[in-house]
Amino acid sequence: MITLYGASLSPYVRKTLVALAIKNLPFEQIQQMPFAKDAEYQKISPLGKIPALKDGDFTISDSAVICQYLDDSYPELALYPSDPQDKARARWYEELGDSQIGEYASGIFFQRFMRPFAFKQDPDEELVEKLINKKLPPILDYLETEVPAQGFMFGEQLMIADIALCSSFFNAGYAGYEVDSTLWPGVSAFIARVKSHPAVAPLLAAEAKTLGL
Amino acid sequence: MITLYGASLSPYVRKTLVALAIKNLPFEQIQQMPFAKDAEYQKISPLGKIPALKDGDFTISDSAVICQYLDDSYPELALYPSDPQDKARARWYEELGDSQIGEYASGIFFQRFMRPFAFKQDPDEELVEKLINKKLPPILDYLETEVPAQGFMFGEQLMIADIALCSSFFNAGYAGYEVDSTLWPGVSAFIARVKSHPAVAPLLAAEAKTLGL
Repeated sequence: MITLYGASLSPYVRKTLVALAIKNLPFEQIQQMPFAKDAEYQKISPLGKIPALKDGDFTISDSAVICQYLDDSYPELALYPSDPQDKARARWYEELGDSQIGEYASGIFFQRFMRPFAFKQDPDEELVEKLINKKLPPILDYLETEVPAQGFMFGEQLMIADIALCSSFFNAGYAGYEVDSTLWPGVSAFIARVKSHPAVAPLLAAEAKTLGL
Repeated sequence: MITLYGASLSPYVRKTLVALAIKNLPFEQIQQMPFAKDAEYQKISPLGKIPALKDGDFTISDSAVICQYLDDSYPELALYPSDPQDKARARWYEELGDSQIGEYASGIFFQRFMRPFAFKQDPDEELVEKLINKKLPPILDYLETEVPAQGFMFGEQLMIADIALCSSFFNAGYAGYEVDSTLWPGVSAFIARVKSHPAVAPLLAAEAKTLGL
């Protein structure tokens, strides 16, 4: 039996939930918050980060490591392409989504959503402006040259690269940020396609319900 | 023909050099500096990061993506274990080495070595103290429970997990920091074993020569 630890609103937990949905794997989820000073949870996730996964007696953390593990252990309904060069490109997109896009787009979410609603603090609007106007544009310019006109990064099947590239933009959406479709029409349409995919849409609907949107 | 782009002193470039050494793959190296505003290099590494790899017409960046790619494309002399759970643990150690240990141990190197010698700036000693006394100890406590009494993380063969966990500590060593062998004897001995491995020692000797040490 698989147990996933992590709060659904985390872009990285969401990515792992999509992976489990693509693979049709049964699992239970524990809505673990990150960095909990919880000795039991640290046995599962040594740095206290989310998501973490328990599969029988085996535990592992980090969303990219978990998704690779799921693909290696349950190869049906692939999360990564099989050709080594495509697989490397997929991992590169995933890394881009998890690192820079995570930092910038989830940064907007943290400032404009988490700070006022969860921590009763004002957002750092100077930082948000920098993220929106300086940090994200070069990444979006690059992505505009990479996204396909239809379907997903590696064809008709949604894979990890697709959800990794989009997940933090969904969070930024909760903070009122959308990728400008006049400047980056390809990226904007790509994000919309991922959003409406049957492995993604029900998760976003559940989040909206939790958030009272 | 394989070309590796990146300055040898980067912990991530060094990791990739060790991967190429383990696999006995012929390659040429271009001593590329990171974040160069160089349109040609951005075609190879879209964010300007190092290392990047060119293999025939195929280009890819990010050290973890490159090492996986090398293992997928040239499977002889494995860089990762084959069992899915061991492979996941190896990727987790690599991620730990590339992210937290990279930030903290390479942070010491950046402050105490790069700032004075390359940028003619004073180090931020308050930050260095925090890295040494607050940030690294919990990671070292955890690693002390993980490292084997002899050999490497997955047996007698040096693999990516081993070099990823140690590479930033080698950089910290250039800044005078060594893991305290009275507090973390297992980690200290593990780093020494990796340092003297035949795929690693010649690289460190070449670095020392470049640095005039």
